[in-house]
Amino acid sequence: MKENTARSLVLPVAPSRGRLRPLGLDEVRITGGFWARRRHTNETATLGHCRDWMERVGWTGNFRAAAEGRVHRDRRGREFADSELYKLLEGMAWQAGTAGTLDADIAALTEAVAPAQTPDGYLNTAFGHPGQRRRYSDLEWGHELYCHGHLIQAGVAQARTRGEGELTKIARRAADHVCATFGPGGIEGVCGHPGIEPALVELARLTGEERYLDQAALFIDRRGHGTLADGEFGRVYYQDDQPVRRATVLRGHAVRALYLAAGAVDVAVETGDDDLLTAVVRQWEATVARRTYLTGGMGSHHRDESFGEDFVLPPDRAYSETCAGVASVMLSWRLLLATGEPRFADLAERTLFNVVATSPAQDGRAFFYSNTLHRRHRGAVPAEDTVSPRAESSLRAPWFAVSCCPTNVARTLAQLPAYLATADDHGVQLHQYADAEITTSLEGGHQVALRVRTDYPSGGSVTVRVDRSSSDGPWTVSLRVPAWTAGATAWLVDPDGTRRTVAPGTAEVTRAFRAGDEIRLELPVRPCWIRADPRVDAVRGTVAVQRGPLVYCAESVDLPDGHEVDVIRVDPSAAPEDGPDGTVVAAGQITAYDTRREATWPYRPLDATAVPPPADRTGIVLVPYHSWANRGPSTVRVWLPAMEPDSTAPPPPDLVPADDRHSTIGA
Amino acid sequence: MKENTARSLVLPVAPSRGRLRPLGLDEVRITGGFWARRRHTNETATLGHCRDWMERVGWTGNFRAAAEGRVHRDRRGREFADSELYKLLEGMAWQAGTAGTLDADIAALTEAVAPAQTPDGYLNTAFGHPGQRRRYSDLEWGHELYCHGHLIQAGVAQARTRGEGELTKIARRAADHVCATFGPGGIEGVCGHPGIEPALVELARLTGEERYLDQAALFIDRRGHGTLADGEFGRVYYQDDQPVRRATVLRGHAVRALYLAAGAVDVAVETGDDDLLTAVVRQWEATVARRTYLTGGMGSHHRDESFGEDFVLPPDRAYSETCAGVASVMLSWRLLLATGEPRFADLAERTLFNVVATSPAQDGRAFFYSNTLHRRHRGAVPAEDTVSPRAESSLRAPWFAVSCCPTNVARTLAQLPAYLATADDHGVQLHQYADAEITTSLEGGHQVALRVRTDYPSGGSVTVRVDRSSSDGPWTVSLRVPAWTAGATAWLVDPDGTRRTVAPGTAEVTRAFRAGDEIRLELPVRPCWIRADPRVDAVRGTVAVQRGPLVYCAESVDLPDGHEVDVIRVDPSAAPEDGPDGTVVAAGQITAYDTRREATWPYRPLDATAVPPPADRTGIVLVPYHSWANRGPSTVRVWLPAMEPDSTAPPPPDLVPADDRHSTIGA
Repeated sequence: MKENTARSLVLPVAPSRGRLRPLGLDEVRITGGFWARRRHTNETATLGHCRDWMERVGWTGNFRAAAEGRVHRDRRGREFADSELYKLLEGMAWQAGTAGTLDADIAALTEAVAPAQTPDGYLNTAFGHPGQRRRYSDLEWGHELYCHGHLIQAGVAQARTRGEGELTKIARRAADHVCATFGPGGIEGVCGHPGIEPALVELARLTGEERYLDQAALFIDRRGHGTLADGEFGRVYYQDDQPVRRATVLRGHAVRALYLAAGAVDVAVETGDDDLLTAVVRQWEATVARRTYLTGGMGSHHRDESFGEDFVLPPDRAYSETCAGVASVMLSWRLLLATGEPRFADLAERTLFNVVATSPAQDGRAFFYSNTLHRRHRGAVPAEDTVSPRAESSLRAPWFAVSCCPTNVARTLAQLPAYLATADDHGVQLHQYADAEITTSLEGGHQVALRVRTDYPSGGSVTVRVDRSSSDGPWTVSLRVPAWTAGATAWLVDPDGTRRTVAPGTAEVTRAFRAGDEIRLELPVRPCWIRADPRVDAVRGTVAVQRGPLVYCAESVDLPDGHEVDVIRVDPSAAPEDGPDGTVVAAGQITAYDTRREATWPYRPLDATAVPPPADRTGIVLVPYHSWANRGPSTVRVWLPAMEPDSTAPPPPDLVPADDRHSTIGA
Repeated sequence: MKENTARSLVLPVAPSRGRLRPLGLDEVRITGGFWARRRHTNETATLGHCRDWMERVGWTGNFRAAAEGRVHRDRRGREFADSELYKLLEGMAWQAGTAGTLDADIAALTEAVAPAQTPDGYLNTAFGHPGQRRRYSDLEWGHELYCHGHLIQAGVAQARTRGEGELTKIARRAADHVCATFGPGGIEGVCGHPGIEPALVELARLTGEERYLDQAALFIDRRGHGTLADGEFGRVYYQDDQPVRRATVLRGHAVRALYLAAGAVDVAVETGDDDLLTAVVRQWEATVARRTYLTGGMGSHHRDESFGEDFVLPPDRAYSETCAGVASVMLSWRLLLATGEPRFADLAERTLFNVVATSPAQDGRAFFYSNTLHRRHRGAVPAEDTVSPRAESSLRAPWFAVSCCPTNVARTLAQLPAYLATADDHGVQLHQYADAEITTSLEGGHQVALRVRTDYPSGGSVTVRVDRSSSDGPWTVSLRVPAWTAGATAWLVDPDGTRRTVAPGTAEVTRAFRAGDEIRLELPVRPCWIRADPRVDAVRGTVAVQRGPLVYCAESVDLPDGHEVDVIRVDPSAAPEDGPDGTVVAAGQITAYDTRREATWPYRPLDATAVPPPADRTGIVLVPYHSWANRGPSTVRVWLPAMEPDSTAPPPPDLVPADDRHSTIGA
């Protein structure tokens, strides 16, 4: 793998090797469109919302309580509550970028956290203080290393955006403590929740200190050998069932599995361990092919927040945790940098638009923890000021007892510009499309600047204008042609106007660009029916609508007469069409059931002569999945039943006439 | 409702009022066929198997330990383990019937139990002894009244089969204790697990003592007012969310809900409370129409063994607990006696053949606890001598930590002859079909004897021969025409050879019968496709096969090349046909997936031009659902995917060719 000397340091992930070189937040700016709006809401609403809630529920105060020796009595929240402050700090640092508008908040939170760190670097408010359980006495559930991992990521974010500060120093002390405690000769264990691994690698990348990388590699190698207790959910829950390099698919708790895989890629890249990288790619392939929802969501078990069996992807039981979406993007991004393969950017795009973007409400002050693809009953609106149980996400809630998702979304949106584009010796690669300005230097200090303009994802036209090219030599602009264009035609228009079709994968233009040169990519953004592999039993006989990278859904608030979504039948033989305001209209029928004349038994002989559905169709309005549940309690479904004769056949005769029935009682 | 003076006392359920009068075990004998074989296995294998296991796991010893004051140290099994001995005792009593071949076993077990009863009648080995929690300190989970209920049913069974004995005396003392403790002025509570209610009513019927009935009525009225704690699963789990007479559907823990409903019918019948009876009928209707599996199985949630939401009946998540099947038969039988409506016998038949008969292995020494309708992976064979976790029923297990099902199946098979037929002033009604001999007396001491011969359920011909009729006056023989005949034609042939078609419901022949008269019912027993209400999302696009009352399934052991059931597609346009040895053969295809050339993404645009399935069909062998998993580890499915174009379309192209893929790593 090629050496990588990043020109920028403002990077969430800065591998020293890889096919592609990441561009920093000082090289890529998002200037408008879908993600600019989301990032604006994140900066102006979500970050402060998270800060205030953690103050209010006492998680911030835990650190003070620890410093004052009363934490055993006064501590609030779950074992991992500390990590939410760290994720928030990381988010603030990346959102501030090099501008640093959030410096005051960062300083204040750092000041709140600092006093709780012990001289040896250990920092956790749930263990090790007078009256508490001793440190690392519960590696399965204690989350101590997991918390240290998020602390380290926050410290790295500060150093990369504003230079090393107090937060970075705290993080380094914590990392030194972890190495001293879990290094050779130390505790032969791993944390029940991975997360420390990618953090230590990133710190090694920041500082150049090998020992952090060695410790991460040690954690990766140790896992899968049963050092953790075989608990209620089995060792598979925390991936301690099988060594990382021997596993063939992601399994167990989805967030844990994805964080671990991300850390394994980081270690593989830094140590040149291609076998390990190959193992993770193999696991990603099997997971995407068999254990991933249409939205990119991962995890179908509520009980243990875990992946289900192959092809067991029931939409009404989709857990699809927001944090698993965040972790999936982390993994895909690392694999993209390592391999250069566009399929990783394809999954990241799908997951960003349909999971990460779905979690926060329009106002950025309420969140989905899990992201079901089918909800049959309207839920009550969670109260503004109460903490919701974590998976009761019929509607977005302002905060959760386990509130990992809000801060995870916040830090991801804050980092987002870094995921748009990369560079290599030959030029610049565009992976995600948004209005953006990109400036970097290629081989030999060759300065280039690009300006991207697009209406994506509502439209499919992407214009890339070369604003600057400091050399007369040829270089390459690569554009990802999304996998979702398969079956339709995408066009690329060169600066000279030459127009050619391009296939899913990568489209390239190589030439001696001059300022003002424009490349145009035209993607076939239009609604189309999607069907699933027939082995996905749970969606047999249904179709879904996708438009560009966006998955659509039917939401009850768009149905007439207060109907719920179970009345919808669609006609897959008629192509769905664009409706007003980003909606899609599908031909279909509304089959209202007369519950007063219900059949007494819901199964009946197949009637070959069943009447075909009447010819008349009505337009069913569909909206982007990420936008649902912003208009009050509603029901929703992504997979829409296709019309069949039996769906409109009369119900079976009541075997005992309704009137007759009650007269027989008490006679 | 009409007064009921049963001619027989050998009855599991002996209401004093009702449309129909039950016939006792001394009036109905099963002489051959399907149920005779099952009852023979029950008598010769299952009863002893249960007795030996309870000895071996120490549940029998608990009573001795209680008598000796060391039960706090030595007790084995869950809180409700006592009840398994009582259910076994009840089963032995009914199986012994008036013959009493099992008297020695009954006496020995009674002797084991007796010393643990305290002078005030309380009998439970989990509470109230030195070193244990005090009596009734955990009404939610303690199961003390539930255990007393099964003890009382065992005592009633002894009295009704062999006359009042020691076991009956113990039961009466326990019942007196319950009335004294929970009656007016006593503890204002109910048991977390219903069961005491029908038991007290049956004891009142046996003894004529009103106070047992009053106590049962009190328990029914008390429930639903939130006297139980709002625990992990909510008050709905033990039906304490809503008064019985106000509920509109069965909900919460399925066995609890059904036992409670059965007790409510008993109370309603004895007290003439027609509103209560009407409420239970309404709940039964809604439950059967919206919350019941094709097999008659009830309960779709593993987590709390509960009913799911309306139409949420995923076959692969079917819990369909065996004991819920037993409880459903209890409820249906009571409603049949009260109302005379054949639909209750229809559900009982479906549940007996497809749930109760499915639980025990052919040898009667292993059992299903839950009865899934779809299993994707072969399970390991539970070891002969180990106790299985309760719901891990990929294969039948010899015993469970929560082993309610084996003894519940045993007592149900023992009682079975009592569920075949009833009588009223005008004659005899046949509800279930088996080779049997029926003798009873009608109005005015008119003696009648009937002999039933049939090959049911393999065949549909039922011959009823009048062996005796002591009066020359006319009387009526009624035969249930099963609901499953809807859409086909059933015939009835009178003694004089007159042949007429009969509709689902009841067919009657009234005349002055003479010895030798024969009636023949010809039921259209042949395989046919069944489809579900389109609101059952989980089985959309699939069909099932039913043949007479039997639900069929595809089992992997009948597929070629070691395939699992997920490769099957059937052609609903071709009628399934009878195969050899009670099998059914359906036209279909086997779509083997080449997992080496898997698609990287399981969703793809709907291709209107998808290739239609090839014309060639192969025969898919189906077997009765109750018989599955008797030939080693296998996979199974009841709902079979119908062939569609997309089920045979080629997989989508890999967006990155497999070969290309790995070369990009580590390059």
